[in-house]
Amino acid sequence: MGGFFTGRTLADVARGLRSGDESPAGLLAGALESVDPDLNAFVTLDPEGAGEAARRAGEELAAGYDRGPLHGVPVAVKDIIDVAGLPTGMGSAHFNGYVAEADALCVTMLRDAGAVIVGKTGTHEFAYGGTGDVSVNGPVRNPHDRERMPGGSSSGSGVAVAAGMVPLAIGTDTGGSVRIPAAFCGIAGFKPPYGAIPTDGVFPLSVSFDHVGVMAASAADCALAYRALTGPAEAAPSPVDESAPHGRVAWIEPLEIDPDVERAVRALFPDAPAERIDLPGIRTVFRAIQDAEAYDVHAERVAEAPGLFQPPTLERLERASRTPGWRYLRALRERERFAAEIAGLLDRYDVLAMPTLPITAPKIGETAGPLGPHVPTVVSLTCPWNVLGLPALSVPAGTVHGLPVGAQLVTRRGAESLLFDTAEHLAP
Amino acid sequence: MGGFFTGRTLADVARGLRSGDESPAGLLAGALESVDPDLNAFVTLDPEGAGEAARRAGEELAAGYDRGPLHGVPVAVKDIIDVAGLPTGMGSAHFNGYVAEADALCVTMLRDAGAVIVGKTGTHEFAYGGTGDVSVNGPVRNPHDRERMPGGSSSGSGVAVAAGMVPLAIGTDTGGSVRIPAAFCGIAGFKPPYGAIPTDGVFPLSVSFDHVGVMAASAADCALAYRALTGPAEAAPSPVDESAPHGRVAWIEPLEIDPDVERAVRALFPDAPAERIDLPGIRTVFRAIQDAEAYDVHAERVAEAPGLFQPPTLERLERASRTPGWRYLRALRERERFAAEIAGLLDRYDVLAMPTLPITAPKIGETAGPLGPHVPTVVSLTCPWNVLGLPALSVPAGTVHGLPVGAQLVTRRGAESLLFDTAEHLAP
Repeated sequence: MGGFFTGRTLADVARGLRSGDESPAGLLAGALESVDPDLNAFVTLDPEGAGEAARRAGEELAAGYDRGPLHGVPVAVKDIIDVAGLPTGMGSAHFNGYVAEADALCVTMLRDAGAVIVGKTGTHEFAYGGTGDVSVNGPVRNPHDRERMPGGSSSGSGVAVAAGMVPLAIGTDTGGSVRIPAAFCGIAGFKPPYGAIPTDGVFPLSVSFDHVGVMAASAADCALAYRALTGPAEAAPSPVDESAPHGRVAWIEPLEIDPDVERAVRALFPDAPAERIDLPGIRTVFRAIQDAEAYDVHAERVAEAPGLFQPPTLERLERASRTPGWRYLRALRERERFAAEIAGLLDRYDVLAMPTLPITAPKIGETAGPLGPHVPTVVSLTCPWNVLGLPALSVPAGTVHGLPVGAQLVTRRGAESLLFDTAEHLAP
Repeated sequence: MGGFFTGRTLADVARGLRSGDESPAGLLAGALESVDPDLNAFVTLDPEGAGEAARRAGEELAAGYDRGPLHGVPVAVKDIIDVAGLPTGMGSAHFNGYVAEADALCVTMLRDAGAVIVGKTGTHEFAYGGTGDVSVNGPVRNPHDRERMPGGSSSGSGVAVAAGMVPLAIGTDTGGSVRIPAAFCGIAGFKPPYGAIPTDGVFPLSVSFDHVGVMAASAADCALAYRALTGPAEAAPSPVDESAPHGRVAWIEPLEIDPDVERAVRALFPDAPAERIDLPGIRTVFRAIQDAEAYDVHAERVAEAPGLFQPPTLERLERASRTPGWRYLRALRERERFAAEIAGLLDRYDVLAMPTLPITAPKIGETAGPLGPHVPTVVSLTCPWNVLGLPALSVPAGTVHGLPVGAQLVTRRGAESLLFDTAEHLAP
């Protein structure tokens, strides 16, 4: 399953470009040659636009005008994010023929950093689902087992990186949509704190929880890309315990999980004391707010052209339409309560560690497993950090049953460095 | 229907107290003697507590310690507002036996101003209705025709003033609950801007719209009481047109109204240009937000003891429980849009005038009239000013079919003086 970028870090790539061993045009050609249509990662490729961007990046670098570590690097962008002149398909028949007029703000940031946008990657329809197999473009396939889901909703971005087609992809994450495909596909995915990367020009799912995030082979690559987009690292966040070299880590006990997945991830944090939080309670808050906000986005489409949705999406939206207003109000209050509780935990610990997902990637088309329906299962450990807007990183944590699993690290807002430092020092 | 205070202004009363012609104890005795049980205005009288307060007020005044125009004045308080040591009944069997431990903040303000709290007045159950005839305490009766509704939800407060039992009463107003009984009963009622009088210790109906207001025989008495509670008038608000002596007035066209009521109120504003606003649109916003918030308050009572509600209240709550979250979200956005539209209108006019109600008081027990069901009809002209949090005053505007009608005046936040000035100069 190796592609052109398999085994190369962003730092390697950047060095190669500056030493003259690589060129932006060469990297782009490698990316395009690595695209495997059977995996269905890309819904749109833009060889012309990307070629022009690569040519310009090459000229700038040759002239000594250096935009930093993403300059000349091929990047893939999820297909709910507008890229001027390209279709934004949302994985939905509703947007058949729609072409974006302007770049989303995060795309402008990518271009300012010199990145070369290769194309648009497949998404779970309207990003409303974590499995990545519901789309008018058909399912994206997991490169570790093509009969299995890649996870979603940023499915194509995850697969494009995992298969070495690009060294970096942009996704969005409302309940886990960057971290879930990262974990199922064996790469790293970082959801920054809420608002850290602007969502302007990104199609909304649930405005209270929508985040833009980055996906790359490793935590170090995610850190490099995140800082290239948002500026230098925050002023050295202090760990709770200065004697703990990379901050004090708590293990958050997953309540419903495949025990093999739990064992594999727990092994990376042998000394972390276990803590419990009300994960199901937070998921209830997540669901009430997400569903009310999602239906607000889609009410007219459901009323006027329900048949254009994929059936599972329509069914979810119809259920979402019935979320009562009073439950939404209570969820807002509960969210405040949970925020205070987790803030207390993060006064005692620097990093909360847990599996990213309680299962490994299910077969495409399968809707439930031993833990119940996949849709709620896949967000059970990721959505709390959208509800609270905290930075969360998923990093590869080996394999279980021959499939990748991810470890998830969460910290205080502004202490993102602690996540990357902790990931770097994990037992391999 | 005259009581002890019929025909006396608050200023008269205050003068009498200071000249020695009146005493707090004498005023209290007059109030208690005026209580007509058949009107059902009071659900609790507190002769002992009030007697003690009157005695203290008398001593303070005699000693030259003057707390201002409410010092020694008997006041009635709606029965959803806590008065320490007295039951707060909410008009509901749910609160049978409940006795408040502490004063609501508005009651503390009344006591600091020296007012004598005579007792608690009947309310539509949980203040959730504008007709005033749904309560475990039975219907409050309109003193102008005892077979007719007083309006609600501050029914007893309106009747206690209208029948001369007290010169001042405190009510609450979430969709019109101070102004509606004021108009149906032929007195004045003032809903200040949102938050001007704190709601702490007041049982919530819809936290976004709940206001505490004052009810008295005239606009001048409302102004006096409001300023006694909240401090001196705002720094001279400037009218749009300095040449118009009391500000420039627009007539807001009521869309669905008894034409006799419209004619009677319009006659007070012969020169005001007519303007239209989307009253039904604002009522839809009102309803979505009020219902979601109201059900949030009552969900456990509905689940655990539905039979303790009056049937019409339970029916309303069950409907409210089904207000979808996405409609609540849209109502919040629509509210912003309406706020901007009305702010534009209030850049051109100082005061918006309209009838307080589109009908005169219906018979007790009647649920609908020529304009449709009474419940939405009675708030159609008042609830917009709760949605927008603007100050709104209802003043007597003569009679139609032998029953009182009210004129409603609305202005910018902070320009309350313009309302009282305009009311003072209305054609009688």
